[in-house]
Amino acid sequence: MVIKLFYTPDTCSLASHIALQDAAAEYATVRINFADDEQRKPAYLAVNPKGRVPALVTDRGVLTETPAMLAFIAQSFPQARLAPLDDPFLFAEVQAFNSYLCATLHVAHSHRMRGTRWADDPAAIMAMQRKVPESVSACYELIEENMLRGPWVMGESYTICDPYLFTMAQWLEQDGVDPSRFPKVITHRRRMAERPAVRKAIAEELA
Amino acid sequence: MVIKLFYTPDTCSLASHIALQDAAAEYATVRINFADDEQRKPAYLAVNPKGRVPALVTDRGVLTETPAMLAFIAQSFPQARLAPLDDPFLFAEVQAFNSYLCATLHVAHSHRMRGTRWADDPAAIMAMQRKVPESVSACYELIEENMLRGPWVMGESYTICDPYLFTMAQWLEQDGVDPSRFPKVITHRRRMAERPAVRKAIAEELA
Repeated sequence: MVIKLFYTPDTCSLASHIALQDAAAEYATVRINFADDEQRKPAYLAVNPKGRVPALVTDRGVLTETPAMLAFIAQSFPQARLAPLDDPFLFAEVQAFNSYLCATLHVAHSHRMRGTRWADDPAAIMAMQRKVPESVSACYELIEENMLRGPWVMGESYTICDPYLFTMAQWLEQDGVDPSRFPKVITHRRRMAERPAVRKAIAEELA
Repeated sequence: MVIKLFYTPDTCSLASHIALQDAAAEYATVRINFADDEQRKPAYLAVNPKGRVPALVTDRGVLTETPAMLAFIAQSFPQARLAPLDDPFLFAEVQAFNSYLCATLHVAHSHRMRGTRWADDPAAIMAMQRKVPESVSACYELIEENMLRGPWVMGESYTICDPYLFTMAQWLEQDGVDPSRFPKVITHRRRMAERPAVRKAIAEELA
């Protein structure tokens, strides 16, 4: 299978990039430059009409949405054991965690830089930015207290939840969250940063 | 398997409720009353510390997040054929659609009634409300033009995408979206409303 990942450094596309490394998949990468608004230009909209990264081009077609892409990578490379594929309940726990990151944590974060998605008034956009430390911290409270089992998100087994949490946790300080409140999240971030797959994905994005 | 669905009428929990009917699952329902703020009281927080609906209690534990719950129902009742379970690419397409509804469409909608999640200033919350018709319409443009294949979301096969889109489409008019712009979505909504499983789920919620 030929796989091409469209990514932008410092975005959620890193999660899928790490998972491709974890899976020992063969893949190519294409960088989309947000500074040039490349994600909204016709060439990229032909790949992903949403005008967002990531997108995963396969020989079957294009996939988008990080939770779907992560599950696809886990299912396409079962030997990498990136999710409990044979147990619908455990798989659903993995998916629920990733859905929370996508629809609640990432959305809270996006109100810092992407407020124009939800309001036009500049004062409203500033009001959104002011609340980001509180709303993102509330997500990390739930993750720290109720979700992150340790050493990996799902406990003893590394899964597709781990690169996704690591990717989100890159933004903690920028979002005004006090990292000392979330020692499990920070320990997880440090543990992830030491993995060769993570280092390789980051090195490719910064090359 | 014993299944209990915690739901609130007129919320996204309807999607999982319909899927349980589609699957011919045995289940019980528990209504959570938003008017009493029941979702934030200790009894419910013990079930779902997120303080949101839906939650699905199984004999293995509690699941949350609609995309994860829908995939769980599809995988737990394979004879109902609610998703292409044996094809990772097609399954990822289903998941990508549901992730988009969860993280983009539902989030856009939530800025009408739940703005306090992302700002404190009343003027900012009103500014969010004003943009909902535009941001929700933009989602339906993508769905109408790029996603909804017809007659069902994924084409000839009914999947767990269909009850989720139907559930979201209940809110179209309230969100100030002009339904005449989206004939495929409206036709789909009408087709769904005729299904016995949908009628039964709605009747249970309104009983």
